[in-house]
Amino acid sequence: MKTGILKLLREHEGYISGQELCRQFGVSRTAVWKAVNQLKEEGYGIEAVQNKGYRLRSNPDVLSSSELKSRIRNQWAGSSIYYYEETGSTNIDAKRLGEEGADHGTVVVADKQNAGRGRRGRTWQSPAGKDIYFTILLRPRFLPDKAAGLTLVMALSVAQAVERICGLQAGIKWPNDVVMNGKKICGILTEMNVETDYIQHVVIGVGINVNLDEMPGEISRTATSILLESGKETARAELLQEVLARFEENYGIYERKLDLRDMLGEYNGHLVNMGKQVKVLDPKGEFEGIARGIDASGELLVETQDGKTVKVYAGEVSVRGMYGYV
Amino acid sequence: MKTGILKLLREHEGYISGQELCRQFGVSRTAVWKAVNQLKEEGYGIEAVQNKGYRLRSNPDVLSSSELKSRIRNQWAGSSIYYYEETGSTNIDAKRLGEEGADHGTVVVADKQNAGRGRRGRTWQSPAGKDIYFTILLRPRFLPDKAAGLTLVMALSVAQAVERICGLQAGIKWPNDVVMNGKKICGILTEMNVETDYIQHVVIGVGINVNLDEMPGEISRTATSILLESGKETARAELLQEVLARFEENYGIYERKLDLRDMLGEYNGHLVNMGKQVKVLDPKGEFEGIARGIDASGELLVETQDGKTVKVYAGEVSVRGMYGYV
Repeated sequence: MKTGILKLLREHEGYISGQELCRQFGVSRTAVWKAVNQLKEEGYGIEAVQNKGYRLRSNPDVLSSSELKSRIRNQWAGSSIYYYEETGSTNIDAKRLGEEGADHGTVVVADKQNAGRGRRGRTWQSPAGKDIYFTILLRPRFLPDKAAGLTLVMALSVAQAVERICGLQAGIKWPNDVVMNGKKICGILTEMNVETDYIQHVVIGVGINVNLDEMPGEISRTATSILLESGKETARAELLQEVLARFEENYGIYERKLDLRDMLGEYNGHLVNMGKQVKVLDPKGEFEGIARGIDASGELLVETQDGKTVKVYAGEVSVRGMYGYV
Repeated sequence: MKTGILKLLREHEGYISGQELCRQFGVSRTAVWKAVNQLKEEGYGIEAVQNKGYRLRSNPDVLSSSELKSRIRNQWAGSSIYYYEETGSTNIDAKRLGEEGADHGTVVVADKQNAGRGRRGRTWQSPAGKDIYFTILLRPRFLPDKAAGLTLVMALSVAQAVERICGLQAGIKWPNDVVMNGKKICGILTEMNVETDYIQHVVIGVGINVNLDEMPGEISRTATSILLESGKETARAELLQEVLARFEENYGIYERKLDLRDMLGEYNGHLVNMGKQVKVLDPKGEFEGIARGIDASGELLVETQDGKTVKVYAGEVSVRGMYGYV
């Protein structure tokens, strides 16, 4: 009910009477009063005026389950939310939930991660109260080799959501870093549990630097936060809700043809490497060329000096811009 | 030290003196006496004769960690052993250990599984004290698409070990069931945790029907145990040790060329489908043909009536013998 009241207050222009809330939820005025008090304790600024009712005046920047549920309107992305004030890693939590049978679209969110991880076991700094750390659990019914594209789908979804909510341009550094002004604001770690040919589940973990007001030391050369670039704080729940909405939509598009062909324009439009000189760090030999965007399978097309186009697969190589991080 | 004493007793012809044991382990006679008593309590028949010393007369059929460690002489397969009298599923245990950083070659063994699983979430019956349930954790440094072959490598290793220890012919029903007289004695479930292009770990779970003296109801048409086929009980630890030894060797062969080419003779020699009429249950349409063995990538070559050879990939289809289970 607390979530329901929060949702009604948020969607309602002006005041909503206690009587109306009682009617909607079929409970006593005392029960409504208790729920409102709980919300106040969680930091919601709720004004109560006699003969008028209640009104939501301010919203704390929290990622709690009721905050998120009161915002999410998706079919499946975020249908179940597990919120932890503090956890080791949301990917590990989501994988455990996956083993236990949790549904497609289940989301694990944390305010702080103690053992946040990047790709290949690298650590990911995850302080409290500033950023978004979440993982979505998926149960696709396609073959494992099609799952690689989902990481690019998530990168695009984050870039789109940041632009809608923060009004700032966000780019993608191929394959899946989201960047602002050439510096990284978001990392994505996709893991999957498979039986040879059969996906048990996929988890996509996302870390977004939102309201950090300082990037420590060396890392500030390649990473930034939305606050540092925009000068404004962002309501994390609003941004996360938008990421999930974009992802649900883009996932639907991906699932239809099992490739990125219907998202090529959007993805390549965000690609900061586009038309730029890149160095391809292939273990078989480095080479340079001009990035010409991705193809439907997510490979980066790199035009070499002799005019040939080489397809670069994300797994085997990394790509470095010739000037700066991207 | 208990494991060390057990190992010495097993490897020693005749009696080994208490004094010698004290010397080897640098402990007092009381400490040796205590360890010997622990072993007796676990079911080991240890004879103690004055002025001669100790001798191992009988070995209980157990899979305990000391029993296994006193037998295993591998480089890495079974370097760490986790033994549980009872657990949910050794695959799930091994995956947790994998997340926590356990080494390549770590083995989880259980005397009983409460939630044993077959492929695609099917259950696997796992009663106590009769069978072998184990999972080996691997950290291959090759790409995920090469991991599928490991299931066939394990099937071959089990078939070879059963033949060496039990002296009975064992066959393989493609891709990875081990059979005796046309009925299944072993199932294998391979699961893997990957980041798109990078294997975090692979777990291969193996269930072998060893000393079951009855297969219940319907299942007796397609499954059997080594005891039912041979009329003899098998020491489970001895068999498991041999499976791990075979697997370590075969894995080394597989890793060199990243395919099965150097095991084709051995695998196809065990293949019960070889030269037989099979029905291929391809979702795109069933067809029949003669199985001609596997190729280096583990695909089954099926010769159809019009003389063409179709490569059948394990993931997408299943193959059924025209007469009986295989």
